[in-house]
Amino acid sequence: MSERLFRMLDEEIDRTWAEIHAGPFWRHLLDKGMDRELYRIFMAQLWHYTQHNPINQSVAAWRVPPAKMGLLRYCFEHAEEELGHEKMIEHDLRVVDLLDGALDAPALPATTALIGYLYSVGLMDGAIARLGYSYWAEDAYPHITDLLGHMRTDLGLTDREMSFFVAHAEIDAKHSDEVKEQIARWADTPEDEQAVLKVARTSLWLTGQLLDASLHAYLARS
Amino acid sequence: MSERLFRMLDEEIDRTWAEIHAGPFWRHLLDKGMDRELYRIFMAQLWHYTQHNPINQSVAAWRVPPAKMGLLRYCFEHAEEELGHEKMIEHDLRVVDLLDGALDAPALPATTALIGYLYSVGLMDGAIARLGYSYWAEDAYPHITDLLGHMRTDLGLTDREMSFFVAHAEIDAKHSDEVKEQIARWADTPEDEQAVLKVARTSLWLTGQLLDASLHAYLARS
Amino acid sequence: MSERLFRMLDEEIDRTWAEIHAGPFWRHLLDKGMDRELYRIFMAQLWHYTQHNPINQSVAAWRVPPAKMGLLRYCFEHAEEELGHEKMIEHDLRVVDLLDGALDAPALPATTALIGYLYSVGLMDGAIARLGYSYWAEDAYPHITDLLGHMRTDLGLTDREMSFFVAHAEIDAKHSDEVKEQIARWADTPEDEQAVLKVARTSLWLTGQLLDASLHAYLARS
Amino acid sequence: MSERLFRMLDEEIDRTWAEIHAGPFWRHLLDKGMDRELYRIFMAQLWHYTQHNPINQSVAAWRVPPAKMGLLRYCFEHAEEELGHEKMIEHDLRVVDLLDGALDAPALPATTALIGYLYSVGLMDGAIARLGYSYWAEDAYPHITDLLGHMRTDLGLTDREMSFFVAHAEIDAKHSDEVKEQIARWADTPEDEQAVLKVARTSLWLTGQLLDASLHAYLARS
Repeated sequence: MSERLFRMLDEEIDRTWAEIHAGPFWRHLLDKGMDRELYRIFMAQLWHYTQHNPINQSVAAWRVPPAKMGLLRYCFEHAEEELGHEKMIEHDLRVVDLLDGALDAPALPATTALIGYLYSVGLMDGAIARLGYSYWAEDAYPHITDLLGHMRTDLGLTDREMSFFVAHAEIDAKHSDEVKEQIARWADTPEDEQAVLKVARTSLWLTGQLLDASLHAYLARS
Repeated sequence: MSERLFRMLDEEIDRTWAEIHAGPFWRHLLDKGMDRELYRIFMAQLWHYTQHNPINQSVAAWRVPPAKMGLLRYCFEHAEEELGHEKMIEHDLRVVDLLDGALDAPALPATTALIGYLYSVGLMDGAIARLGYSYWAEDAYPHITDLLGHMRTDLGLTDREMSFFVAHAEIDAKHSDEVKEQIARWADTPEDEQAVLKVARTSLWLTGQLLDASLHAYLARS
Repeated sequence: MSERLFRMLDEEIDRTWAEIHAGPFWRHLLDKGMDRELYRIFMAQLWHYTQHNPINQSVAAWRVPPAKMGLLRYCFEHAEEELGHEKMIEHDLRVVDLLDGALDAPALPATTALIGYLYSVGLMDGAIARLGYSYWAEDAYPHITDLLGHMRTDLGLTDREMSFFVAHAEIDAKHSDEVKEQIARWADTPEDEQAVLKVARTSLWLTGQLLDASLHAYLARS
Repeated sequence: MSERLFRMLDEEIDRTWAEIHAGPFWRHLLDKGMDRELYRIFMAQLWHYTQHNPINQSVAAWRVPPAKMGLLRYCFEHAEEELGHEKMIEHDLRVVDLLDGALDAPALPATTALIGYLYSVGLMDGAIARLGYSYWAEDAYPHITDLLGHMRTDLGLTDREMSFFVAHAEIDAKHSDEVKEQIARWADTPEDEQAVLKVARTSLWLTGQLLDASLHAYLARS
């Protein structure tokens, strides 16, 4: 039964990634490539929102009934695993001499909206719905090969200098299976399924907006 | 002192409206005009989010200290005034024979993000920060004259058939003064000021996204 | 159908009042009477918790579906009506020269527990469940005639000097009908009924604890 | 500096335990001893509230700033460690043939108040304040030797049959050090200190009420 839900999730997510790939950030990436300034700008935006992920995951345990102990355990363990990922972004900026002042850039509206939306998911929609976010986030790497490619070729970054993305790719294979297992186990009503789909779609759309807004800030710089 | 904050707010809001006016929805409006189907689509999106406004306003009272009684009173009264505004949208669609099925259209990601973000403002940022949203929302009419103009000329709507927008324009002159008074009275720390600015900017940006996403849905229809 | 719920509520509430009347505070009242110091102590505890009532009522709107507009309106209006009741307590202490320093007494554990519990009702159990608290609170006067009697005879207080209690008695006849109407209208599932009963029972029990703890503090004074 | 806070905490907690030891439950324990029915009743009440501890701990992470990573990690790990403790209560009742129907007994008002209060601590007072609860809860064993003694002598329970209490005693030596370390590290403003003290006092007072209410239910049974 969850096969049908996974199929719907994959369709939604592929469609939304296709929109992101057709949007301003990605077109700029493919046409003009990546430079250090654009890299620094979008990494700072990722930094702003990444640090809230353990917290909104933790809060999502709120209305889980105590008897759903496996889901609670997932929330607590996943919250802990997400802890400190922003430090990888700091590391990656530091090793290429881009950290200085980078994180003083305020969160852009798209980033603030993403942060706020994910808290509202944790506080209002709950742990099952939040799995829709993890579903695409733990399996994003096939969709960002262009981005990683340009970071390698245009900026000359090695894997060690892209710890945020590369470490994630490794961790996330494991996480991705866990997320699927949790969805299969807990999303068992039509309302749950709709909530998972809605959170997947909305959080990925906002992430695309974060990228487009980063490009916008980059172009408006000078 | 609040004059400086009002000036900063006006600048942010003018800048964001300028972006909205330069965006896809507004360019389509000016180039191609409004038709019944686009009207129906964006009104349904406004309907989805409007009905949550009294609730997120009410919730914003949460962490107001009891001694700030005037701010609490504002929250409760403003929550009540916002009640049922979605009924005006239903009315406006009904009188031009567009209601049937219109509200079955699901909230688009931009709309879901706006709804979730405004709840996060109420729950996390609080009543003073939320004034940043009211600040532009209660004074939006100068910025949407093109939209109202095309609704009049292209769709032939009378004021009675645009009750959501026209009633708001009247009510909002009064509300707008109240919002300014509340901001002047309560936003008295640099943190409050930053929070008001951030909520103003982010909520208006998301509203622009709601319009652009409505156009996108309209164009993708056929 | 709600007749059965009202009957169950009345039974629970009568039983809990009977326990309060058999408890230390009430026995002291009947045996030893009221003096100015005990009055000052328990009024300060009432003051601590009363000021949170509009806020936890407002927050209870959180998860009300927008379509239950009458329930939302009740929340907002009732929140506003509850606003400032702690000022009556300040007045009543002031006119008999007991205000000075009275409110510096910290909230006792029973009072802190009541404040926290009522927030948890607003945040977690919601607007329908919170009606169980209003149900007994708006109709408490028949149960506190001994208390008011001793305030009159032992302390010589006039009605004007007991504005918190007397004004409430008048307001609350109207409120009590509204609360019954809301319960009859919205508490329509067995879960709602259980939640209303549970909140009624727990909040009244905690109020009894507040009185007993006030006596305890009074006796421990010297 | 935190030495002063620990001293104040110890004083508050000793005073509150002394009140519990002077209260109805403890006096009954010392005078009449424990029997299987009273044991069953108070264990059911402990079961009701214990299962919410991981969740209110998890939720307490909500307003921790992302930069306080050690405090966040404590919240997540401690939430996970608290998971499933109610299963020990089920085990302990099962092995002495008392489980059947025991957990159908509804939460008493004192228990409901404790559950709600601890959620309000997590949601409103936050992770630092909640340490005040852990401070006494992880170091309760010296204060309940009478209780454990009577469980051994009157009910003939072995350590294996008292897994909830005995396992806790062992785990909690470690936890207790962690809690002290967290308090020493994070409770660094006078407001934090007051919040820690208030939560310690209120949650222990409510736990005493849970015991007294269990006795009350036991005596009212027949």
